[in-house]
Amino acid sequence: MSGRLIGVGVGPGDPELMTLKAARALAQADLVVHFAKTGATSHARTIAAGHLRPGTPELPLFYPMTSEQPRDGIVYREALREFYDGAAATLAAQLDAGRAVAVICEGDPMFYGSYMHLHVRLAPRYPTQVIAGVTGMSGCWSAAGAPIAQGDDVFMVLPATLPEPELERRLKDADAAVVMKLGRHLPKIRRTLARVGRLERAIYVERGSTAAAVMMRLADKPDDAAPYFAIVLVPGWEERA
Amino acid sequence: MSGRLIGVGVGPGDPELMTLKAARALAQADLVVHFAKTGATSHARTIAAGHLRPGTPELPLFYPMTSEQPRDGIVYREALREFYDGAAATLAAQLDAGRAVAVICEGDPMFYGSYMHLHVRLAPRYPTQVIAGVTGMSGCWSAAGAPIAQGDDVFMVLPATLPEPELERRLKDADAAVVMKLGRHLPKIRRTLARVGRLERAIYVERGSTAAAVMMRLADKPDDAAPYFAIVLVPGWEERA
Repeated sequence: MSGRLIGVGVGPGDPELMTLKAARALAQADLVVHFAKTGATSHARTIAAGHLRPGTPELPLFYPMTSEQPRDGIVYREALREFYDGAAATLAAQLDAGRAVAVICEGDPMFYGSYMHLHVRLAPRYPTQVIAGVTGMSGCWSAAGAPIAQGDDVFMVLPATLPEPELERRLKDADAAVVMKLGRHLPKIRRTLARVGRLERAIYVERGSTAAAVMMRLADKPDDAAPYFAIVLVPGWEERA
Repeated sequence: MSGRLIGVGVGPGDPELMTLKAARALAQADLVVHFAKTGATSHARTIAAGHLRPGTPELPLFYPMTSEQPRDGIVYREALREFYDGAAATLAAQLDAGRAVAVICEGDPMFYGSYMHLHVRLAPRYPTQVIAGVTGMSGCWSAAGAPIAQGDDVFMVLPATLPEPELERRLKDADAAVVMKLGRHLPKIRRTLARVGRLERAIYVERGSTAAAVMMRLADKPDDAAPYFAIVLVPGWEERA
């Protein structure tokens, strides 16, 4: 009898923003799997800590390289592919042994998450379940008390890595937007938002749903320092009912 | 001493996809408020039912008109504005009496939700808290086991009400997309996706996270009937690591 693969979204950071379903899956899992950078603790693991049954076996999966590597480089892509192939084989052995394997994921497993790399490799062969989670961006706009989109708004998620002209074109074309993966790209985002007339309402957020949250109008941010996971909210809904 | 306004996201439909924070807020609320169409039960109320403390006072807010009214018509907009003004005044009286007022919302309160109309009216005057929830679209792509976006994908939420040429232009410009509010617009969506070469991977979903879920490849859907709240998923991430 084969086991079951469960992608468990643990939400954006505040452990209370985990779903009841996720908490139950963690309490029942035979093995809890998490992704982390070498030498670091998994964010998902930190969020889920209070919900793991004491003694549940855990398996950390360490990414082969850091985010400083160019993501479109062939070396990086090949290393990642090998990493996910190996991780899937490791989990397959656990599934063959009949175990319930819970892969915990920050935010929502199918939305810009690493879990999906395991899912596409294992779902054709094993029973799988995906437990949706609150996304990091929902955590941010909720913490900021910022309504993001309404009615017939077109909403976009844009990576800050986009070239400046493309970013400008897309921001002009969006009613509401979230710009992700800020890091060193913040000056470009600020310039572009100013040029399209949307800097005034833009909000900068770091670690939105945690006690260490940093939130301010982007126009008020005195420097250009931003971690990779900071985001900028560009609320739509200009004309309010 | 004034009360507290709490926007509570109760998630996409499965009551277990509610967060621990939402469940706790409902258990502690002095008044639970929900939006509904006249003559119908609030979806959020149905989702939250198991988490309300017996005897907690409830206040249903009935929308003045149905979704069949043209949303851009001035009559509709004015009626809605009056409705939200009146609802905010009603809640203000409860907040003045020191009560914890929980407004329950399907999905996420700040993402295409009615709560935000109350929030913008009351947040300047009263302490507020917004509890993020799992969105309807996350519930759908998780139930479908469909990875939606990855890496540097540009992700878009598009209302099906958009004119066909605009829908086509935007779908060509998105790596991943969700088309919302299908209803009678489904034939247009199907034609447009076929024209931009993305019908093959598109997935049709109704009530994704509930027992009554309907999911299939849009290309396999034999008819053009779709409820207003059905959505189409257009997964990105064509090239998989």
